[in-house]
Amino acid sequence: MTLKNPLDMHLHLRENPILKCVAPHSIRNFRAAVIMPNLVPPVCDLTRLKDYKTQILQADEDENFTPLMTLFFKDYDEKFLQNIKDEIFAIKLYPAGITTNSQAGVSSFELEKLKPVLNAMSELEIPLLVHGETNDFVMDREQNFAKIYELLAKNFPKLKIVMEHITTKTLCELLKDYENLYATLTLHHLMLTLDDVLGAKLNPHLFCKPIAKRYEDKEALCELAFSGYSKIMFGSDSAPHPREQKECCGCAAGIFSAPVILPLLAELFEAHSNLENLQKFISDNACQIYHFNFKKDKIISLEKQEWQVPSHYGELVPFMAGELLKFQIKNVD
Amino acid sequence: MTLKNPLDMHLHLRENPILKCVAPHSIRNFRAAVIMPNLVPPVCDLTRLKDYKTQILQADEDENFTPLMTLFFKDYDEKFLQNIKDEIFAIKLYPAGITTNSQAGVSSFELEKLKPVLNAMSELEIPLLVHGETNDFVMDREQNFAKIYELLAKNFPKLKIVMEHITTKTLCELLKDYENLYATLTLHHLMLTLDDVLGAKLNPHLFCKPIAKRYEDKEALCELAFSGYSKIMFGSDSAPHPREQKECCGCAAGIFSAPVILPLLAELFEAHSNLENLQKFISDNACQIYHFNFKKDKIISLEKQEWQVPSHYGELVPFMAGELLKFQIKNVD
Repeated sequence: MTLKNPLDMHLHLRENPILKCVAPHSIRNFRAAVIMPNLVPPVCDLTRLKDYKTQILQADEDENFTPLMTLFFKDYDEKFLQNIKDEIFAIKLYPAGITTNSQAGVSSFELEKLKPVLNAMSELEIPLLVHGETNDFVMDREQNFAKIYELLAKNFPKLKIVMEHITTKTLCELLKDYENLYATLTLHHLMLTLDDVLGAKLNPHLFCKPIAKRYEDKEALCELAFSGYSKIMFGSDSAPHPREQKECCGCAAGIFSAPVILPLLAELFEAHSNLENLQKFISDNACQIYHFNFKKDKIISLEKQEWQVPSHYGELVPFMAGELLKFQIKNVD
Repeated sequence: MTLKNPLDMHLHLRENPILKCVAPHSIRNFRAAVIMPNLVPPVCDLTRLKDYKTQILQADEDENFTPLMTLFFKDYDEKFLQNIKDEIFAIKLYPAGITTNSQAGVSSFELEKLKPVLNAMSELEIPLLVHGETNDFVMDREQNFAKIYELLAKNFPKLKIVMEHITTKTLCELLKDYENLYATLTLHHLMLTLDDVLGAKLNPHLFCKPIAKRYEDKEALCELAFSGYSKIMFGSDSAPHPREQKECCGCAAGIFSAPVILPLLAELFEAHSNLENLQKFISDNACQIYHFNFKKDKIISLEKQEWQVPSHYGELVPFMAGELLKFQIKNVD
């Protein structure tokens, strides 16, 4: 089983020293990844962006990985965007306070306020990536954001809008209603519901935002992914936190899935779908949406051989720690 | 502000050494408490019951506390129940595997199977206390159990059935539909929703079963309690686990509220209701339902004086640890 140019369209690499621990997992196995900008302070200017990109590239020994850099959404003016356009892949919008390091995010979705920057992004063809949650009851936050996605999709028809890490049936349906709406989907939301987080005992390592939802939501997500639906792209949202921030009282949100992504996706797609659809989900759909054209390809070979996920990588506990997986990566070419 | 004969109609005291740490909080401030039987092994026979009662009474220095003992529900025969009747207050039914130490619980609610024991309980006037959750999706477990409560209430009209620690609007409404249905309500479910457990960071000390639900559920519960509704009784479900079992990966369900109950209830009722209704909720309703008549009364005086809840009692982290409360217990008479 081989995969050509796997892409992680939503990735948190953090900064040193966590970056040094986690980046190799993604750099080795993916051709490119969209790098999230919610650092402290957030990535909001060219200097910070270039510094961060340098940090990432220093971890790339094989020089066959493209970090697709993003800016933290603000009311940037058009001139700034023109200047920075070639250095960035997209801009990521966070509602204020909705997840890790998002305090500086958007606190009001008044159209008049957003128009200047979103019109400029439309004209410059800069995609808008959105963490779509309101501040409502935790199980309603994503579906209640649907009306804001609709507002954006209707008013900025030329803007490419990506609904990041979708978790609900509501957004699966919305995706089909607007031509300019796209979505990323994580590995863990294909596998989890709220029952896994707290249905039996409480599992802090499965606590993430958006929180895993109901069985019918998971089914809708699986249907989109396993069918290879063209507007959905893989984005891991792999989001490491040191163990003491996961297991202490007041645990941080985020699942560190990077070390297990391709083997686990192969196992899931083998059970529910077929390899061609995994190739679409992991790469081809995004290549088509963004017209990617990589100078040098990266081919990942997977073989069926059981291995046990380590209990931890340094300070970090990975998704599926200690579990047996059926596939492992044999070769990267 | 005084309270006469406070009753905790749902309490977990565990066994030594946890019992020694937690029991004084309840024994000092309550006239009586219904003691849950989900120990390892569960309380299923007279010897175990008497031993456990002795353990509890050894912690009672003032000899003005009545432990109302319960048996773990099984298909007991009528003769056994006749013999043990005077030693027990009620029998507690757990669906199998639904909460801490409930593996030996009921795995099927076929009426024919339950009839012999429930008919015997009806005749002997032994109340049935029920942990009402199915094995469905965690947010639906209680409301999906409503049909089982209805089945029991209809088929055993003379049986006193108590829906324990209710958390949903559905059961608040059901309570009014059947004369022989009653309910207990915890302190923490008057204060929490799922947002408090995982809406921001994850808080293992607020993880309990049934899990806290939606805002509209909490509102329905508050309305019943604050209005002094006659079929609802206070039951803390105070359920201590040592800190390492709460904060580790795979945290156990249960909130240890015993040290803060009366001060916090006084604060809530002062803000939303009046003292008379607190007296109903904390004692009078249960006295009326069960025709309690205590030989010696216990009067608790509370005064308005701020205090800070300790961060821990031995190995145990209490509900509201480190928070400032407005009332404190001045005197027990």
